[in-house]
Amino acid sequence: MTWPTPIDWTPGGAVRILDQTLLPHREAYRELATVDAVAEAIVSLRVRGAPLIGIAAAMGVAAVLGAANGPGREAALALVDSAGDALGRTRPTAVNLRWALERVRRAARAARGGWSEVAAAVRAEAQAIWDEDRRMCQRIGEAGLPLVPDGATVHTHCNAGALATGGIGTALAPVYTAHAAGRRIAVIADETRPLLQGSRLTAWELGAAGVPCTVIADGMAASRLRRGDITCVLVGADRIAANGDVANKIGTYALALAARAHGVSFYVAAPRSTFDFASAGGADIPIEERGPAELRCLAGHPTAPDGAAVWNPAFDITPADLVTAYVTDAGLLRRDQLATLKP
Amino acid sequence: MTWPTPIDWTPGGAVRILDQTLLPHREAYRELATVDAVAEAIVSLRVRGAPLIGIAAAMGVAAVLGAANGPGREAALALVDSAGDALGRTRPTAVNLRWALERVRRAARAARGGWSEVAAAVRAEAQAIWDEDRRMCQRIGEAGLPLVPDGATVHTHCNAGALATGGIGTALAPVYTAHAAGRRIAVIADETRPLLQGSRLTAWELGAAGVPCTVIADGMAASRLRRGDITCVLVGADRIAANGDVANKIGTYALALAARAHGVSFYVAAPRSTFDFASAGGADIPIEERGPAELRCLAGHPTAPDGAAVWNPAFDITPADLVTAYVTDAGLLRRDQLATLKP
Repeated sequence: MTWPTPIDWTPGGAVRILDQTLLPHREAYRELATVDAVAEAIVSLRVRGAPLIGIAAAMGVAAVLGAANGPGREAALALVDSAGDALGRTRPTAVNLRWALERVRRAARAARGGWSEVAAAVRAEAQAIWDEDRRMCQRIGEAGLPLVPDGATVHTHCNAGALATGGIGTALAPVYTAHAAGRRIAVIADETRPLLQGSRLTAWELGAAGVPCTVIADGMAASRLRRGDITCVLVGADRIAANGDVANKIGTYALALAARAHGVSFYVAAPRSTFDFASAGGADIPIEERGPAELRCLAGHPTAPDGAAVWNPAFDITPADLVTAYVTDAGLLRRDQLATLKP
Repeated sequence: MTWPTPIDWTPGGAVRILDQTLLPHREAYRELATVDAVAEAIVSLRVRGAPLIGIAAAMGVAAVLGAANGPGREAALALVDSAGDALGRTRPTAVNLRWALERVRRAARAARGGWSEVAAAVRAEAQAIWDEDRRMCQRIGEAGLPLVPDGATVHTHCNAGALATGGIGTALAPVYTAHAAGRRIAVIADETRPLLQGSRLTAWELGAAGVPCTVIADGMAASRLRRGDITCVLVGADRIAANGDVANKIGTYALALAARAHGVSFYVAAPRSTFDFASAGGADIPIEERGPAELRCLAGHPTAPDGAAVWNPAFDITPADLVTAYVTDAGLLRRDQLATLKP
């Protein structure tokens, strides 16, 4: 694959991210060395995608801890807690964020020794989260391979690809795996208003990988599905509840309804870190509402009257009964098999 | 009502239009005195809305005829034909355009005398089409009044309001009629990608009329309907086939599917000029596909990679079985009553 990595360490141990708000027309990187900088990057979606913000937050805690050399173990643990609290508040819906921060917190507590040992343990855990995510993406790609035969056209929403993860993506992992196996795969990408992750990011990374991609407006998806040439819908997830309800980027639910209306299979791809067995159903998942500016203007150009009232939920809930199956790092699972993922 | 009229005659007999591509942030007018100018204004959506483009085309033929004083009756009829052919080709989906041009053509042929008598007859017919549309909007407003009780929240798509017609609109006519009757009505407006007629035009004209309006992205509609506080969905139409299938702005079909999923009534408002009994069903209605630039950039700002493949149909078909009833100038009609509108 030919894309730049969306996240990395700097030689000095800070976090380096590809600023996704500037894609596809600028590839610019940011170094994040403070909790505030990491939080700002997550809130403003410079780094986004449920798995990737978990990785970024964990690496962020490691970077902050590594940059200082404080008075001792208790101070290090206190910093891990306060940094984790601050980063955990940045975005409420994706569960990977809190899952990754909890892992880092546990690793810190399990470390023996003083500040530098805690810092080393946190950095190792952040690296492990990233490495595991890369492997989970790979396994999702293998689990989803039978869903995308040669000649398949996959319909996707938002960006659940390499830019959203530490590896080859979730929803796009089976696409990349099939493409690498020599299958001819095409993708229909909803542009995904308001922030256009589909047209900006999915079209960009598929283009870089040489996978043909056609961009449509979100409102065109139902018409596209009616044409009868979509093999399946494949989307990612920000959190999956115990009953299989899926929180994902706003517009996913409408796509699931349209897929159902046309008898097209609807798959949700996610690593086990996205499953939240503490949420019984979709109603238990907090849905982030973002500010009105995202709908009132685009790149500084106004798209609505000044002061227009706006409702801007970033996610929606797709009920489990609209999901054909879950493409996970533990294989292709039906709803009644999800409990096998329980930690 | 306080909005500027979207169409008018100039003192010299040309057509004056409000350039809707510049709303909501600039109110600028254009004078159209040639067939090319009228055609350009329709193709580029400076004047849009199925009823309004019919009016604009008829007025355009009258303006062109009135600006010259040709050699006689046959030359005048030839000009009516050639102008009508050119304008009739501008947009294929809305049937009002061809309906209005056919009326003008018949009026021209029925006129006695030479060029100036034909020109006068065409101008009178264009004025009649406009006046009738204004009255049909009024009657649609009255027919739809029972659908929007005090406290109602109406969900709409695109713009089927005063800016789309010669009067108070089609889908928005019941809203304005209820508002004028003192009822408290709120509107949810899909922004309507790619050209944002909902956030740019519907939000603007409702704001000018003092009706509270909340803008959402198209992909949010299904989530909004799930909340359970939408009284009904009300949309316009560009063409309604004999069986009740509805061609309307892309995204309407997805909204109808979501309304059905949540048991919300879905009404289509249109004057009789929008019904096309020559189209048996939706499959007989040609769907305009527009250029890729509308999806690749917004106001000159790129929103997708350069050269990204795009599919950009301007309309979709909502099957009649998703339509609760049709709000027409002949009253509220069920599907099996549509034949009563047959001319």
